[in-house]
Amino acid sequence: MTTNANLTADRPTFVTHLECSLTGERYEADVVHGLSKAGRPLLVRYDLDVVKAQVSRDDIAARPTDLWRWRELLPVRATADIVSLGEIETPLVPLTKSGGANVLVKDEGRLPTGSFKARGLVMAVAMAKALGITKIAMPTNGNAGAALAAYATRCGIETIVFCPEDTPEINVREIALQGARVWRVNGLIDDCGAIVGEGAKQGRWFDFSTLKEPYRIEGKKTMGLELAAQLGWRLPKAIFYPTGGGTGLIGMWKAFAELEALGWIGAERPKMFAVQAAGCAPIVKAFEDGVEHADRWENAHTVAAGIRVPRAVGDFLILRAVRESKGIALAVEDDAILRAVDDAAKQDGLLLCPEGGATLAAYRDALAAGLVAAEDEVVLFNCATGLKYPMPEAPNWLDRTQPIDFDRL
Amino acid sequence: MTTNANLTADRPTFVTHLECSLTGERYEADVVHGLSKAGRPLLVRYDLDVVKAQVSRDDIAARPTDLWRWRELLPVRATADIVSLGEIETPLVPLTKSGGANVLVKDEGRLPTGSFKARGLVMAVAMAKALGITKIAMPTNGNAGAALAAYATRCGIETIVFCPEDTPEINVREIALQGARVWRVNGLIDDCGAIVGEGAKQGRWFDFSTLKEPYRIEGKKTMGLELAAQLGWRLPKAIFYPTGGGTGLIGMWKAFAELEALGWIGAERPKMFAVQAAGCAPIVKAFEDGVEHADRWENAHTVAAGIRVPRAVGDFLILRAVRESKGIALAVEDDAILRAVDDAAKQDGLLLCPEGGATLAAYRDALAAGLVAAEDEVVLFNCATGLKYPMPEAPNWLDRTQPIDFDRL
Ligand SMILES: Cc1ncc(COP(=O)(O)O)c(C=O)c1O
Ligand SMILES: Cc1ncc(COP(=O)(O)O)c(C=O)c1O
Repeated sequence: MTTNANLTADRPTFVTHLECSLTGERYEADVVHGLSKAGRPLLVRYDLDVVKAQVSRDDIAARPTDLWRWRELLPVRATADIVSLGEIETPLVPLTKSGGANVLVKDEGRLPTGSFKARGLVMAVAMAKALGITKIAMPTNGNAGAALAAYATRCGIETIVFCPEDTPEINVREIALQGARVWRVNGLIDDCGAIVGEGAKQGRWFDFSTLKEPYRIEGKKTMGLELAAQLGWRLPKAIFYPTGGGTGLIGMWKAFAELEALGWIGAERPKMFAVQAAGCAPIVKAFEDGVEHADRWENAHTVAAGIRVPRAVGDFLILRAVRESKGIALAVEDDAILRAVDDAAKQDGLLLCPEGGATLAAYRDALAAGLVAAEDEVVLFNCATGLKYPMPEAPNWLDRTQPIDFDRL
Repeated sequence: MTTNANLTADRPTFVTHLECSLTGERYEADVVHGLSKAGRPLLVRYDLDVVKAQVSRDDIAARPTDLWRWRELLPVRATADIVSLGEIETPLVPLTKSGGANVLVKDEGRLPTGSFKARGLVMAVAMAKALGITKIAMPTNGNAGAALAAYATRCGIETIVFCPEDTPEINVREIALQGARVWRVNGLIDDCGAIVGEGAKQGRWFDFSTLKEPYRIEGKKTMGLELAAQLGWRLPKAIFYPTGGGTGLIGMWKAFAELEALGWIGAERPKMFAVQAAGCAPIVKAFEDGVEHADRWENAHTVAAGIRVPRAVGDFLILRAVRESKGIALAVEDDAILRAVDDAAKQDGLLLCPEGGATLAAYRDALAAGLVAAEDEVVLFNCATGLKYPMPEAPNWLDRTQPIDFDRL
């Protein structure tokens, strides 16, 4: 019925195995996995030589542009296991006035459920379906839970979601409306994660926490793949990414390596800027301390709830990508975040989420500090629609039954 | 900087003139117009014979898929006048469980500012820019005002928006945040329209009310163009459209005629179903009464604010399209709307706006009444993201400091 061949055509797939991101130990493909034996994320590996021999950039370019065009670089084997709510390629929107002449926003709020979490979860849910998983639990700051609920509901998988009690009401409601059971918990996201972990240990459900199953990262990887295709098979000079669990940053870094192995891009890489909020900046601290792992951030607080992640299981992968890219991890204050959101809306007509605002604030700081130049093409990630977040009041009221003073309108 | 040639390439344009939709009287292109002398909407006319000779379906198919790919069928002459926030082609999402095996939702909530109003307003604002208009006012039920604010701000046009006092808070705030001045008015949308009209008469601003300037309809037309391209240059058997002012329905009907004139589709047309809420159904009443114009609907009320339009200046154009297509105008109750929204979310993982829910409710009624068959491919328009609307509460709360009873989660 749909004419999108990406969703209906059988295509060869090339996963060879999975690999521990810390030790390199090999794990079998096509069976259920959580973390590696070393307690670290597993990465999916492909036979890229064969992909290179069989698929070209032109093949990709000839397909509809949605996420499933990248099938040969994704883990889903059977076409029937594809789940979809319309994962469009997100646009690059210039942010000329509030950003600069060479600033592009990748507007991820256009994805199903209004955030880039759809990329990771559509892939993880499709793989759960393929592997016969019937019950999933997950901790969330909001957006991931909404994406999980939507996709799991769509393919009949039962879902239980735990979120911090101050998660925005809109997120909690959309999760429930989309068919998941959702619990508010008195704690932060890692406290919610502990409950999910305990239930998984008891065999009650499968643990879908960030990076604790191997496939969300493959979905998030498509941000990097898309960026290369959209820019004509080159990459920007710098990427500013709002970093919580860091899946997207890790995923893009993996994408670039795969694209280079395929010969579709060269060896140049963007400087990766991991952006955190000053009130929750464990990665920034670890980066500045020159260490490989981050300590838990105590008393985490920020208006940008999506990056309020006190402890990230993939900390070393984030830090490695940032360092290899000659980028940096940097923190911005909440008031700079809110000012950036206001400026982008009032000057460029683009409504960012606070996490997206954080990347604009960080870009401004980086520019002032000479870490990027005004001529450098940079991409800021706006990871969710600004419509999910509180906006300032607009109090004007007009009584039409009285004579109207047009001069004051 | 962007690699989207649709936004940067100069392309020939083919507007010959404008035409009164009632009398057929001819008006000059490329000058500022409101309604025709007969007080009716003006329609933009193109030299379709020359378009046909110069542009093919394959040319269109080879371009990026966003709205601006249709340039030769759009009024904007100079590439520099294009305004854009990333007007992607919206996906067709199957609604298999809550709808049926042949039901597709065109998910317009993915457009800038979260609704299909972006289509109309991006075009109208680009033309305002081209024609040197510097100050615009508009009445809105919410979504149109948000789209106007975003695009006008983006190109530096001053904007004043009037909305009914019970317009959802989120809409009022996004309009203000995106740089427009917004006024809540004690009345309905046509009361707001009267204020805009009065100010326009005084020469204070240009009147951007639905169909009162000629270009929103050209933008909305792209819904019909896209549908044809997405379905492989054929059309569905039926279209269910939530009808307020009706611009989208009128626009699609115009698009189909233009596509046929180009030889890109044949003579078959979808049955057009104009869907209204039982609490505000002027078009349905006129359809049933067999008349050409609709009376104002008194005491309009419905949860679907976007279709709470008591009087439509293009009433006769809506009715004409519905009748020519052998479709019908039909009304649905608010409780059926809310049930449809709930079903689509809980069964298919797709969050509809109430207006989108209205189309699903109407489809169900039409199916039950034998007006469409289960085998017919139908397209329902979800004109805005469901995230802008109230959702039911989700009250579950879990105290993690107490022993957790996993059985009840
Ligand atoms: C809007 C938004 N931005 C950024 C992030 C952080 O993403 P990641 O976990 O990939 O670091 C999140 C995660 O919840 C989010 O919702
Ligand atoms: C979500 C939504 N659906 C439908 C409509 C009605 O659109 P039209 O004016 O084209 O009939 C509107 C208009 O405000 C809307 O916001």
